[in-house]
Formats: sequence, C-alpha cells, structure tokens
Amino acid sequence: MVSSACLLQASRAAIRLQLRKQQPYTDTLQKTINRWVTQRCYSIQTSPEFINSLPPLNAADLSILKTTTPKGLHPPEELKFGHTFTDHMLSIEWTSTSGWLAPRITPYQNLSLDPATCVFHYGFECFEGMKAYRAVDGSVRLFRPDKNMARFNNSAQRIALPTFDGQQLIELIKKLVRLDERFIPNARGFSLYLRPTLIGTQRTLGVGPPGSALLYVICSPVGPYYPTGFKAVCLEATTAFVRAWPGGAGDKKIGANYTPCIVPQVDAASRGFHQNLWVFGEDEHPTEAGTMNFFVVLKDKSGQMELATPPLDGTILPGVTRDSVLHLARTRLQGWKVSERYTPLAELAEAAEDGRLVEAFGAGTAAVVSPIRRINWHGKDIFCGLKAGEEAGETALKMQQWIMGIQYGDEPHEWSVKI
Amino acid sequence: MVSSACLLQASRAAIRLQLRKQQPYTDTLQKTINRWVTQRCYSIQTSPEFINSLPPLNAADLSILKTTTPKGLHPPEELKFGHTFTDHMLSIEWTSTSGWLAPRITPYQNLSLDPATCVFHYGFECFEGMKAYRAVDGSVRLFRPDKNMARFNNSAQRIALPTFDGQQLIELIKKLVRLDERFIPNARGFSLYLRPTLIGTQRTLGVGPPGSALLYVICSPVGPYYPTGFKAVCLEATTAFVRAWPGGAGDKKIGANYTPCIVPQVDAASRGFHQNLWVFGEDEHPTEAGTMNFFVVLKDKSGQMELATPPLDGTILPGVTRDSVLHLARTRLQGWKVSERYTPLAELAEAAEDGRLVEAFGAGTAAVVSPIRRINWHGKDIFCGLKAGEEAGETALKMQQWIMGIQYGDEPHEWSVKI
Repeated sequence: MVSSACLLQASRAAIRLQLRKQQPYTDTLQKTINRWVTQRCYSIQTSPEFINSLPPLNAADLSILKTTTPKGLHPPEELKFGHTFTDHMLSIEWTSTSGWLAPRITPYQNLSLDPATCVFHYGFECFEGMKAYRAVDGSVRLFRPDKNMARFNNSAQRIALPTFDGQQLIELIKKLVRLDERFIPNARGFSLYLRPTLIGTQRTLGVGPPGSALLYVICSPVGPYYPTGFKAVCLEATTAFVRAWPGGAGDKKIGANYTPCIVPQVDAASRGFHQNLWVFGEDEHPTEAGTMNFFVVLKDKSGQMELATPPLDGTILPGVTRDSVLHLARTRLQGWKVSERYTPLAELAEAAEDGRLVEAFGAGTAAVVSPIRRINWHGKDIFCGLKAGEEAGETALKMQQWIMGIQYGDEPHEWSVKI
Repeated sequence: MVSSACLLQASRAAIRLQLRKQQPYTDTLQKTINRWVTQRCYSIQTSPEFINSLPPLNAADLSILKTTTPKGLHPPEELKFGHTFTDHMLSIEWTSTSGWLAPRITPYQNLSLDPATCVFHYGFECFEGMKAYRAVDGSVRLFRPDKNMARFNNSAQRIALPTFDGQQLIELIKKLVRLDERFIPNARGFSLYLRPTLIGTQRTLGVGPPGSALLYVICSPVGPYYPTGFKAVCLEATTAFVRAWPGGAGDKKIGANYTPCIVPQVDAASRGFHQNLWVFGEDEHPTEAGTMNFFVVLKDKSGQMELATPPLDGTILPGVTRDSVLHLARTRLQGWKVSERYTPLAELAEAAEDGRLVEAFGAGTAAVVSPIRRINWHGKDIFCGLKAGEEAGETALKMQQWIMGIQYGDEPHEWSVKI
C-alpha cells in the first residue's frame, strides 16, 4: 500500500521535476505550482533539495539483457503496420521519490501491472511515432528525433507525467535500434517504426499526478504505406463530432485524443470514405485529416501559388512531417506563399469551382504525404485538383521525394541522424 | 501475430455486436455501419449469422478460484480511497470472434499485457464507480446498479469497445461482493468501492476498433468522504482549460476525460482551492465541479426556490447521484422549481449579491454531496450562501440524509438492491 503521504510527495515531486526540466506553461503557473508543492504538504515536507537531487534520465546507466531466442524475420512483403515486433525493448521506470531509474534493454516481453494502475483508468499515456531507415550507404538513420523528443515531453507534461532529457532518450533509442537493426528490410519505403510510450503506473484509484511511470520503446518493422504507388483518398468532413477544442489537449500525442475518434472514423468509412476530415468552428475549417495534418495548395485569382495548413492553435498536432513540409516549402518553392492559416471549406469549395484548388494532402510519419482526391462536405463533393486517373499532385510528389531523399540518405541533411 | 483479415473481422464483429445489443447513435449511423460491416470486407466475409451467434455475457458460466492467502483487514480508520483491494477480482475476456468468454473470479492479481496493447497507446478504457453498503439490517446492498450498467455500456460504445447485458454483470458483481463482503466495515459512511473497468487488449498499433477486450471488476474498502462531518470547499472557475465540448465525449466515463484535467486541478490547488469549477461557453456557465456534477439552489425575486444543474447536453457526465438528487428534489421538495438549465457565473454572482444564491454543491458517488463555500471567478469571490462556520446548507444536508438513508437501508426503496 502506498501511503497518502507518499502519494502527496509523489505528486509534488513529479510536478517539480517537470518544471525543473521543461519550460512551464507560464511563469505564473510555475510559481503557483511551486507554492502548492512547498506549502500544501499535509504530512510530509518535500524539500526542494530532495527533489532537485532526483536522478535524471541517464543513458550511461543502460544495462542490456539480450534475448536467447531471436525471432525469425517475416518476408518484407508480408509486413503489416504495428503487427510484429523486434527481439528487444527499452524500459525506464520513474518514481517521484527516486527519479529516473537505470534504463534497461531486455527481450520484448509483457508488462505485468496491477489492475488498479492509473493507465487503465484515467488515460495516463502518451506516445511518439518515429522511424529508423536503412540509408543508401547502408547506415541506419533517424529523422529529426529531437522534434519527437520535444513533443513527447510536451505531451507528458500536459498530463502530469514526468519529463526527461530528450537527448539521453535518443542515445538509448539508437542503442536499441542498433541491437535490432537486422529487422529493417534493406529496401526503399521500408523502415523500423519506433513507438516510445510513457504510461502512469501508480497503483491507486485517486485522480491525481501519478507517483510512478514507465517509459518504454518497442520497434515494429513496416513496409511502405503505398506499396504500389500513391492512391489518393476520399475524405468526409465530420461535423457531428469534434476532435479537439481550444483549452483542451488536442495538440498533444496522448491516448485521450485517439479513442473518441474511432467511431467517427468508422462512421465515415461506412459511407465508403477512406478517412474523415476533422473540421472546427462556425467557418468549418479543416483541422486534421484522420490522424494526419492537412495541407492545401491554392492559386489565387492573380495566379499566386499558396501552400496552406492550419496554424498550431492548440487543436492541431504539431507534426514532424508538417514542420518538414512547411520548412521545405519555404526554402524550395520559389515565389510561393506558405501560410499557416485556416482554409474554411466554403473557401475550398469556391476555389475548386474556379479551378484554383490545385491540391490537398495529408502529412504524417506513416505515409509522409497522402494525396486527397475529394472531400465530401454536407453531401457535396469538393474535388481537390487531381485529374481522372491521377493519384498525386506535383507538390505532394515533390514533398515525398524531398523528405524520403533525406530520410534514406540520398541527400546529406542535418535532419537525418545516423544511429 | 493477428492477421489483417482477423483484424477487419474483429472490428466489424465488435461494431455489430454493439449495435445488436445497444441502441445506436442514430438509425442512419446504424444502417451505414451495418453496410460497412457487411460490404467492406476485404479478405474475410463476416457473415451476420456468425456475428449474431457470438456468445453474450453469461453470468451462469462463472468459475470461481478462491484465494489461498486471504488478506488481513485494515483498521477502518486507516482506509484511504482506492489504496487497498479485496482478495478477489472478476475478469471477463471478449474477442470479436468468440464474443464474451466465461467470467472468472480469481485471486486479485496483476494483468500481463503485451506492450503494444491498445489500452497503453490510444486510451481504450472506460470504467464505472459504484459502491456496496452494509445496511442497518446487516444485508449488503448496491445503489442503482442498473444506472451504472447503462452508462458503462454507453461509454464502451462511444469508444468502440464491446457492450454487454448489464443485468448479467450485476449478477456477477453481486457474487464478487458476496465473496469479499468481510472487507466492508460495519459502520455508517463506510462502503466497498467497486471499479468495473473495460480495456481494449488488441496487440497491434493500428488505430481502429479493438478485436479483443477485458472487462474486470476490483473492490476497495473505503471510509466516509467527510470523516468528521461536512467541510465546505472553495472552487476556482477554470477558464483557460476546457474539460468537454459539443461533439466530444465529455459525457462518457472514459480515461480520455480524466488525464487532461489533472494539470488544471493542480493549477487551481496551487492557489489554495480544493478543486476547480469547469465552465463552458461565452456565458461561462459551470458544467462540473472537479469530477462531480454541479448544483445550485436559487431564490428568485418573488421568493420561488429553485434547484438547478446543467442539462445533459453532451458535456456533462450523467451522474447517478445527479439523477438521484433531481428525482428526490422533484418528489420531495414541495413547491420548488427543479431545473436542468445553465446558470452562468454572472447570474450566480448577481444572485449572490442579492442574497438569492442559497446554496451550491457538488454531487457524486464518492461524497454524495459536497457543499461549496465560494467560487473564485476571474479573481472575484462568489459566496454560495453558507454562513461563517457553517459547512453545509439545508438542501445538501437533506439530500445526503435521503440518499444515505436509501443506501444504508433505513428507508426501503427500489434504488437499493440487496446482493
């Protein structure tokens, strides 16, 4: 049994640890949380000295226990997303009294958790999606892992889970990938999908910041999203369900943002759509396409080209691919306007009618880009610039080539990080 | 490895099973899902006959394995909410190909789950909170368990988890409570807190309806919420964060509704408030008080008394205590107006200034009612009718007496169900 005193101490230490390592929401919030942490101790005084002495995540403490029963490899063409996993996993426990414990790489194995563990009840879970690629020179590379670490920490902080030094976790992930690199098929489009996950492991039913947590990373070899080339998707604009709201947590990669979206997706699929398009506001502006960020290419009446995606207003996941597309557009699409702005569906419908909606596509780690053929909006189709038989527009094609070129090492680039 | 075909079959069977047992969102949604289920089979035809033949949850199939190491009992005064658990737990597995498997009561034990299990990533989890009471006649009773079962099914359906026959689960819960009834202290205000939980157990990373799930129930002996009598709480109106929104899932008891609320609660606590008051809309109307429903007692200028709580508009948890308070008010508070309507904070502030805000309280399973002393709204205090030194108003006191009177069997009532 964890005592109430421990629990309080745990909660406070968790919050302090986060605030120490990570920029807080606001200075005011930091100050008030600090006050709460030090002033509202009911039974145990948690001294700041004690909290500051908690061990941080340290890659140098890693221990490795290799499997004695290595798995066979599946033929690459049979790989399905997230169905098979490699030989090993990385696990790092955290407690509010001991900080981050020594990281361990062990054989891939089940987690054994008390049924009262908070991850089963209150959704204490956040994750990342990233990939390791086998480059043309035979090296294995990650793509912008620093961006994943920053977002992982932001997600953790938003749901009162502990934060950590992202560079240390990158070092540990590199070691894990090195150990299991035989699982990465040596073919373009294939990769090792990495799933860093952080869950709350406190074994009590009170609703509050967890006093313990487990960070783990598992790896799944995956094939190309479009094994036979692009296949443009049809989306249905979802107006009855809303994915995210200002003041919510829609910009974080937390479990809470996924489950409520399944029924709306099944609903859209039931009418033959590949995915749903989330919209928000009275102007019904698109926010995300399924679980991808949303981009459009528009031409204004003067012929000016524009690439637009919704701004990071708190309802949009700050995608690594989204950021990469924006950066590449700003540096390589000469003369284009690159906008983070809302594009209400009425504007897109009008542009489509005028022949000025040139392209629409989703962007995400799984597919890089996913061209959109049409959007059904209140029963009316908005066609997104693709000719009959055409499966991808010029911009989507360019973006995919540029990004994959960096991921697979064709083009030396600071975004591509050798393991 | 679960094959893609199985997964598709699993998803469809899950949805069909839900739709067969439970009222769907709308007829249109049912029809379209049915169409999807039967028409969009890529590799395996899931026949409706097969799905309809899936075994439902059946209490008669229960097997019981008793513990050989019974736990000692904690002194009642040391009980802390959700910290200690009884000897046994109830578990029922579900798969989309086999339906509900035979229920099992076993010794309380850890769950062993693959790290790729969907409950750890996408928040596939919902739960209930209910209690078993030792009545004055020595019998053990549940309080309105049918309401919990209905809500549990609604929560499950909203996040694509399987539904079940609530009456069968009540029978199973009765058996579990009977087996562990020695843990219920024989004293007023004590009870056995029951936590039915349903989690998705599919072991793949694709985002979709889980093909397997686990329903389990654990029991924790708890003491009274106010061991030394009522203690009125001070709330801070939260305007920077939003708990729920139209088109979301704020009216379901799912993990997704809890984690994003921790930081705002800690934030309010940091300024000395016991809880935060969730508000919504431009009119800033209260929706919930922490994790409780929100009630006010108002007197209009003519002296008419009114009990008001926000309507079930999709952002409000349909609390069993909420429903009970409304029902008791409508049948026992003669001459009162009982309203499900918004009460914007400006209205409450005005009423408070006029001396017409008579009471405010939260309502929930844990505390029954929780009187509110003041609400801080944009830095200004709204005092909620309590005199200095007074810890509860008349209505809150009456409601607590009436409801506990039924829970503990002082008053024979259909809401109180003997195990």
